[in-house]
Amino acid sequence: MNQVIDTMLSHRSIRKFTREAITPEQLDTILSAGISASSSSFLQTTSIIRVTDPEKRTVLAECAGGQQYVETAAEFLVFCIDYQRHFQLSPEVKPEFTELTLIGAIDAGIMAQNTLLAAESLGLGGVYIGGLRNNPKAVDELLGLPKYCAVMFGMCLGHPDQDPKIKPRLPKKVMVHQDGYQALSEEAIAEYDDETSHYYQTRGSNQKAGSWSDHISERLSKESRPFIRDYLNSKGLATK
Amino acid sequence: MNQVIDTMLSHRSIRKFTREAITPEQLDTILSAGISASSSSFLQTTSIIRVTDPEKRTVLAECAGGQQYVETAAEFLVFCIDYQRHFQLSPEVKPEFTELTLIGAIDAGIMAQNTLLAAESLGLGGVYIGGLRNNPKAVDELLGLPKYCAVMFGMCLGHPDQDPKIKPRLPKKVMVHQDGYQALSEEAIAEYDDETSHYYQTRGSNQKAGSWSDHISERLSKESRPFIRDYLNSKGLATK
Repeated sequence: MNQVIDTMLSHRSIRKFTREAITPEQLDTILSAGISASSSSFLQTTSIIRVTDPEKRTVLAECAGGQQYVETAAEFLVFCIDYQRHFQLSPEVKPEFTELTLIGAIDAGIMAQNTLLAAESLGLGGVYIGGLRNNPKAVDELLGLPKYCAVMFGMCLGHPDQDPKIKPRLPKKVMVHQDGYQALSEEAIAEYDDETSHYYQTRGSNQKAGSWSDHISERLSKESRPFIRDYLNSKGLATK
Repeated sequence: MNQVIDTMLSHRSIRKFTREAITPEQLDTILSAGISASSSSFLQTTSIIRVTDPEKRTVLAECAGGQQYVETAAEFLVFCIDYQRHFQLSPEVKPEFTELTLIGAIDAGIMAQNTLLAAESLGLGGVYIGGLRNNPKAVDELLGLPKYCAVMFGMCLGHPDQDPKIKPRLPKKVMVHQDGYQALSEEAIAEYDDETSHYYQTRGSNQKAGSWSDHISERLSKESRPFIRDYLNSKGLATK
């Protein structure tokens, strides 16, 4: 089709990297492309912390639940919601924070996806590290995040040292609705469960039994970071 | 550099479109590329509502505060956080919703950015419509969104009928920090304010006086959708 669409369609998360560095020129290009993304109301509410300090990388890998590639990736970027700069510029304003937190989360995703895709277009690979939200306060203190600035997720980038299969996504007939919400098709989910069961059983590593539905039941039955609300409140990004 | 990075670096939001349609093949490609994006814990928490009904488009344009291009764009997509399908598959689970709402917002941004960029790579243009959150309940009812499914933002796509200038972003030395949060440089902001003042005064339409700092003060002094928290709570995506 074209390079943009081909890059998207061939996306796989990469969690194993060679020791080869990303050059300063490559990183500069990746970050320039990342920050060119759209920004809600031109607020520009994202900060990226590039972490090169090996000791900090080790702590972040632990914070993320022992994801060792946080230490070994050529680059590790931490994406944050950041209204600190806005408050420095306009200390008098008292905005409403559920909405501003939502804007910050959406815009962090938008900027990060440009960043990841720019890296992939250069032959690099990467993975989002939502696991930083397992220990948001420890990450926050390690990186010295001020009030109104909160960690959202990390991103490993580097030269791929693995070639995983592409993970099959929910089909468009489930994800995309026409003119109004359409009820979930049990038939479509049954087909997708077959497809994902096959994927889980035949992928190159971490093979397992079970379908996407099984994965969802297992994943959502665990407690989902109940401390996140307190963390956001402590940063002034009040949701209470 | 390459097509991916060139497409990102030349991004401008497009709000004026020709009457030319997006072909079904183009739309299919754009959506396939969009849903190939990463998904937190493989939860796949996004639904896209494609709105073709002209009457619904008219209502949505009003909901967004009179953004007429919501009516006239070749395609209009509404991105939603969607845990309805997960609850149908696993009605017994009771997850914690500040975290899941955050995941949903971030992942909607990630998927939407793939979608927009795929369209731009085909010579199309578009713009995010966060204004749908001005009237979330009206949008929600119009599209028949069930519990655990909440509107986040819309996206216009079509053939550009304007050629706006690229809006200068905050410089990397402000957006990107090294190993820890770095205080805002007043000098960097002053330079950026000069740059944005020049941009606002010389852009092709909607010229105005003032800098980015002025824009921030003005924008954040307005009430920022204080009803969003109640809306999310009403959808079961509790933040209270």
